[in-house]
Amino acid sequence: MTTAPAWPSSPAAAPSDTDLERLDAWWRAANYLSVGQIYLKDNPLLRKPLQREHVKPRLLGHWGTTPGLTFLYAHANRAIVQRGLNAMYITGPGHGGPGLVAASYLEGTYSEVYHAVGEDDEGMKRLFTQFSFPGGIPSHVAPETPGSIHEGGELGYALSHAYGAMFDSPDQIAFTVVGDGEAETGPLATSWHSNKFLNPQQDGVVLPILHLNGYKIANPTVLARIGDDELEALMRGYGHEPLIFTGGFDDEDPLEIHRRFAEVLDTALDRIAEIKAQAAEDAEAGRETERPAWPMIVLRTPKGWTGPKEIDGQQTEGSWRSHQVPLASARDTDEHLAELDAWLRSYRPEELFDETGKLVPDVASAAPTGTLRMSANPSTNGGAVLTPLRLPDFRDYGVDVPVPGGSISEATKVLGTWLRDVVRENPSTFRIFGPDETASNRLQAVYEVTDKQWNADFEEHDRSEHLARAGRVMEMLSEHQCQGWLEGYLLTGRHGMFSSYEAFVHIVDSMVNQHAKWLKVTNELEWRRPIASLNYLLSSHVWRQDHNGFSHQDPGFIDHMVNKKAEIVRVYLPPDANTLLSTYDHCLRSKQYVNVVVAGKQPNPNWLSMDEAVVHCARGLGIWDWAGTEQLGEEPEVVLAAAGDIPTIEVLAAAKILREEIPDLRVRVVNVVDLMRLQDESEHPHGLSQKDFDGYFGEDVPVVFAYHGYPWLIHRLAYRHDRHSRIHVRGYKEEGTTTTPFDMLMLNDTDRYHLVMDVIDRVDGLGTRFAGLRQRMVDARVRSRAHAYEHGEDAPEIVDWQWSDEVDAAAGAAAADTGGDNE
Amino acid sequence: MTTAPAWPSSPAAAPSDTDLERLDAWWRAANYLSVGQIYLKDNPLLRKPLQREHVKPRLLGHWGTTPGLTFLYAHANRAIVQRGLNAMYITGPGHGGPGLVAASYLEGTYSEVYHAVGEDDEGMKRLFTQFSFPGGIPSHVAPETPGSIHEGGELGYALSHAYGAMFDSPDQIAFTVVGDGEAETGPLATSWHSNKFLNPQQDGVVLPILHLNGYKIANPTVLARIGDDELEALMRGYGHEPLIFTGGFDDEDPLEIHRRFAEVLDTALDRIAEIKAQAAEDAEAGRETERPAWPMIVLRTPKGWTGPKEIDGQQTEGSWRSHQVPLASARDTDEHLAELDAWLRSYRPEELFDETGKLVPDVASAAPTGTLRMSANPSTNGGAVLTPLRLPDFRDYGVDVPVPGGSISEATKVLGTWLRDVVRENPSTFRIFGPDETASNRLQAVYEVTDKQWNADFEEHDRSEHLARAGRVMEMLSEHQCQGWLEGYLLTGRHGMFSSYEAFVHIVDSMVNQHAKWLKVTNELEWRRPIASLNYLLSSHVWRQDHNGFSHQDPGFIDHMVNKKAEIVRVYLPPDANTLLSTYDHCLRSKQYVNVVVAGKQPNPNWLSMDEAVVHCARGLGIWDWAGTEQLGEEPEVVLAAAGDIPTIEVLAAAKILREEIPDLRVRVVNVVDLMRLQDESEHPHGLSQKDFDGYFGEDVPVVFAYHGYPWLIHRLAYRHDRHSRIHVRGYKEEGTTTTPFDMLMLNDTDRYHLVMDVIDRVDGLGTRFAGLRQRMVDARVRSRAHAYEHGEDAPEIVDWQWSDEVDAAAGAAAADTGGDNE
Repeated sequence: MTTAPAWPSSPAAAPSDTDLERLDAWWRAANYLSVGQIYLKDNPLLRKPLQREHVKPRLLGHWGTTPGLTFLYAHANRAIVQRGLNAMYITGPGHGGPGLVAASYLEGTYSEVYHAVGEDDEGMKRLFTQFSFPGGIPSHVAPETPGSIHEGGELGYALSHAYGAMFDSPDQIAFTVVGDGEAETGPLATSWHSNKFLNPQQDGVVLPILHLNGYKIANPTVLARIGDDELEALMRGYGHEPLIFTGGFDDEDPLEIHRRFAEVLDTALDRIAEIKAQAAEDAEAGRETERPAWPMIVLRTPKGWTGPKEIDGQQTEGSWRSHQVPLASARDTDEHLAELDAWLRSYRPEELFDETGKLVPDVASAAPTGTLRMSANPSTNGGAVLTPLRLPDFRDYGVDVPVPGGSISEATKVLGTWLRDVVRENPSTFRIFGPDETASNRLQAVYEVTDKQWNADFEEHDRSEHLARAGRVMEMLSEHQCQGWLEGYLLTGRHGMFSSYEAFVHIVDSMVNQHAKWLKVTNELEWRRPIASLNYLLSSHVWRQDHNGFSHQDPGFIDHMVNKKAEIVRVYLPPDANTLLSTYDHCLRSKQYVNVVVAGKQPNPNWLSMDEAVVHCARGLGIWDWAGTEQLGEEPEVVLAAAGDIPTIEVLAAAKILREEIPDLRVRVVNVVDLMRLQDESEHPHGLSQKDFDGYFGEDVPVVFAYHGYPWLIHRLAYRHDRHSRIHVRGYKEEGTTTTPFDMLMLNDTDRYHLVMDVIDRVDGLGTRFAGLRQRMVDARVRSRAHAYEHGEDAPEIVDWQWSDEVDAAAGAAAADTGGDNE
Repeated sequence: MTTAPAWPSSPAAAPSDTDLERLDAWWRAANYLSVGQIYLKDNPLLRKPLQREHVKPRLLGHWGTTPGLTFLYAHANRAIVQRGLNAMYITGPGHGGPGLVAASYLEGTYSEVYHAVGEDDEGMKRLFTQFSFPGGIPSHVAPETPGSIHEGGELGYALSHAYGAMFDSPDQIAFTVVGDGEAETGPLATSWHSNKFLNPQQDGVVLPILHLNGYKIANPTVLARIGDDELEALMRGYGHEPLIFTGGFDDEDPLEIHRRFAEVLDTALDRIAEIKAQAAEDAEAGRETERPAWPMIVLRTPKGWTGPKEIDGQQTEGSWRSHQVPLASARDTDEHLAELDAWLRSYRPEELFDETGKLVPDVASAAPTGTLRMSANPSTNGGAVLTPLRLPDFRDYGVDVPVPGGSISEATKVLGTWLRDVVRENPSTFRIFGPDETASNRLQAVYEVTDKQWNADFEEHDRSEHLARAGRVMEMLSEHQCQGWLEGYLLTGRHGMFSSYEAFVHIVDSMVNQHAKWLKVTNELEWRRPIASLNYLLSSHVWRQDHNGFSHQDPGFIDHMVNKKAEIVRVYLPPDANTLLSTYDHCLRSKQYVNVVVAGKQPNPNWLSMDEAVVHCARGLGIWDWAGTEQLGEEPEVVLAAAGDIPTIEVLAAAKILREEIPDLRVRVVNVVDLMRLQDESEHPHGLSQKDFDGYFGEDVPVVFAYHGYPWLIHRLAYRHDRHSRIHVRGYKEEGTTTTPFDMLMLNDTDRYHLVMDVIDRVDGLGTRFAGLRQRMVDARVRSRAHAYEHGEDAPEIVDWQWSDEVDAAAGAAAADTGGDNE
């Protein structure tokens, strides 16, 4: 475990009136700039009387949450200046974009990153005009916003991201605003429990601030309407020490409000300093630190605070009506224009900005400088602080493959041995996330060098079962948390992977959408440096969920991902252990991708030696000439292609039957590891030219393709290639139940016998010549099912099937050795 | 509001020793049958010495959670018998399938539904053999399990389903077991808050039982390791009154355990009876009932309770090792076989079953009879109690369309007027679910006759904003909750719809997977009657999220759904208000489907009169001859096709340009409402024959297709049709940001100008003849973008575009009338 660095000690001094006045001025400046961004396209400092033409024609943005966000930012800044905290700011209500853009502009970061938006009148005009404007910037806290690692367009992930960012960042604190709207989402509701997974010595601090402004788009929020007794109980139940603050609902002097909130925040930060001091002391003494009740703050303010109290006789401040743009007709009616003018002037811009339009130094001094600025925290531009992993040579972990199929391995278990050493070599920059499935997915070798990090209560025997206060494996039964933590970890410059059951990774479909969008946008932003890829390992896949049944069978995540931009998504289906090693090495080296790797955990023949695997993976697909019967220089008569470990077995079994039964048929066997290779080069950077495609798949011969997932995807990928309609795809067609593995294949017509039938049906002339063979294939299917239904397991000729006679008995023995499994 | 029926009053009598002995015997019987299902394929009542060959060759199933489930079931039965409760049982840990199958077998329901599995030796042998066996039944609580509405393969939805089932079921109670594993998921964590949405007068009761057996597959659970203080606080914070029970961890006499738990359950049920009595009294007096603190039970028992305490020297009962099959080698080693024998005999089967294998009457009397049996509750076979909706004639709600484009409507707003009357006509069988978006998606007309149901705290002004204790609209900012509630409501025989922003419906990708699987399986079960379809209304769609930006733009839910079985999924893209009405009428009448309807909420021209709309929707697609330039009987030279409201506008605009600029070009315009029509008839029940396909799209002419979503989907759907490569598709290609609506189209090459360019590029001979026109299109795009970037809005020629000269100024006036919107 890393020894915790010294946490800044707590100064006792309460803020002076001058401090609070300065803080208030900074807050007014941030609010002024926020309103300006939403409404104005000219006259940024109101040096001229406000005219309709200064107002944007289309008013877009969200005011309601913004003043609360700037209030908190201003107070966080006071604490940072006073204490020297290394802090970042995570904005759950990400639609409060104007507030965060304003803050980073006031801190000077915005102009550093975007030179055109300078700290003067002209720059402020640009700042206002570009907001939520074509060719400008999004209305939300987005990748474009300096200091952000969290967009918040889709709500619910603020705390998961924050905790992910704080793992292995012992000297950092994340001020994390949770909107009371997003607090209703499932992912957010469970993410409070992240505190049971944080280690006070080795990890940083998350200070959640539940911002109760009371309303969503059109409704009150649940947490604002359950009473403080239930709310406090809820937060205590989540393991927090809640500090509840209410301000802004009456005519209290703003300085008094600031004084009261500063006290609350200082209480929280003092408590955190105590916890961190204790943790440091414990670390020094080699003691563990028990999970403390971390403080959290409930910040109850009016929605649209400091905005118009009423518009057209209807309550606005403190109502859902201030959610977006409260003065929608500011350009259309004199009355609304006047109200906008009064609203803007209420912040007294003339006190805040000098004649050039620059923030006056005294107000600027309310914020920290350099990398202590939350908008310039290096960790929020993760690629800039990214250290490449030290990766052991994966070749050293390969399995011996004397002949194709000549040994048997559980591919993910082999991968686990390499990952073990990845963990060992990278003790503070690499983590494995998964919903209670790391061992079930056979990565248990990692437990030789690390543990599962757990900071809930311990029982005696836990220690022998790899639970510890600190460890590289993060397991909580929430795919949302695994995804959110990993994203936060990656976005702050670290590395990791997410191991999941294939079917249930759909739980994070929408989250990975947002991450893919983040990557796409950051690819277009020069100043955002590339971060490590998000790596999935999808195991316990569709073909081996015969025991858990239909609910556990869904290979559609690949389809979901393929709709993302080609430059973001990679999909790999390594057919065996050595190819999985080579693939994962590649994934852990890569940046800015979402890598989807599907690999089985069950005993499976190995086909390629390590050298062959490296070449095969580098090419992404290849002709397995040892498996086919074509002669050098002759076009094959049929191509049998496979993508996926189980389809590979079936294709090879079909090829063997064909070799024996129709020895003069020229069969080519192609195996695809990198699914994106099937696309045309115009569609994807990994795509093949027409010439290369024909080189692999023949020019105009039938292709019988056994695919791991939904068959349509292969058609889709190969669509741009000429003569694609000759490709006949088998795969999962949503048929399944609790049955045997081979019956799963038969239910979906993807078994070896059916593939042989497909070849007979597709190659000219075979139908009549080999009607008998075809009938034998039909019979074999019937027999296989009958055997399964009678005995509850597949027939020996399926289970003990061997690709070639050279495969010695050792393979069978190895298979028997691996034991049963049915997680 | 419905008046609450009388809730059964609470009998005071505590159970006698005889009652408890009977209960214990029933529990032992259920456990015996559970173990039998997991392990045995013969010798079901151990009348012969147990031999290896009696044990299944492949041991599959989950023991760990099962005894807790049967314990609770037995106790619920005692209460049902004593109180006459109308109850159902929802099993969050659905992998405890053997326990629920056992319960329904003991109640006789199983044999009623599956005659072959009788109540005798032979039947019991079948019961055991079929479990988790090819050709048999799944290992989980599945559609095949009588009394189930919840599979639980994917965890997290038990409470959402339970609350959904209890809405408008005032005389029912759902005993709802929440596993402590699933309690870690996001959806489950927020679903506790469902109690703020339940009305004690009009709705039924959910009694959550948090089953803390302490372990997941390989880890302890969070809620089992936070201490009772935090756990109690958490439950109180969620608004519950927790009753904590611990049993089974020492050698306490089982009867004592039963006595103690019966007391806890009676306390909960007495409290519920009080609440219901108060609610009835309030209803009688016309008073509202405030949200009570509903009781919930924490049931702490050992995992694998009553199973082997130790196996091979390792703790099993009370450990994750009992999660699945604790005696994995029962068939392989004498020692394990003997342990299995002892385990089975520990339940004393000879006391429980008579010589024929039938449950002895005294034990059977521990369970209720008839429809009071939870396994035979009619509501759990929703289709059997389904009443069709009373649907007002949608034609009466149509908008006037004097000429195509001759009026403008917000389609979803028009739909809202019809939905208002659907609500009015069906006051207790139809609900609208949505995450805070019913009004934002423009269905606000429903508030003329109903409210949003809300049972958290009220503030004064809420009443004027459609919040009420009871109402047909359910809004919580959790797509998971909306989906889960709706599923529970549908599965118990009611009707409903889910209105969501298009991009964020991906949040429930995995949930709808499971629902689609449920429907697929129930289609194959004669005794399960068809339930109402799950209807989505996806609005605020990709093309009109120009203001919220990239994070809000994702049309991929359609792609996700299309991987489901063809007989389950329907996708509709009505181009205007009248077609939306017709489509939704069709959806609300349908059964056993998932209907995905995508429709915009912004002002949009109406193209079809109601009569035309009815015909168009009945056909699912159609040639809009008024929009094209082809002559009767002549093949067109190009087909412009559209699916989706915005693409329809662009196609018509392109057609108009072509009509004016290349008047002699024979252009056909095709509009597609029912996306599944594009498939081949062999692929989908709605698919077209080749002849019909050619009839619509011409035999071999270029088709330029503007599609609402990711373009690939059109290729996929049309793939089986001959000459499909002539189809050139434009659609969303993951390009977007905060910009104008038309710029969104241009970013994705789906705008009118680009479609004209596509026609010029695709039709032989046009390229040279109309190079000038093509260049003007390029220029128009440049000008449009320049205008947008300068003014922040689209140019007047885009916004005020009219299909034909006949369209009078009224249309423009109507558009101006609708006001701005940017939720």
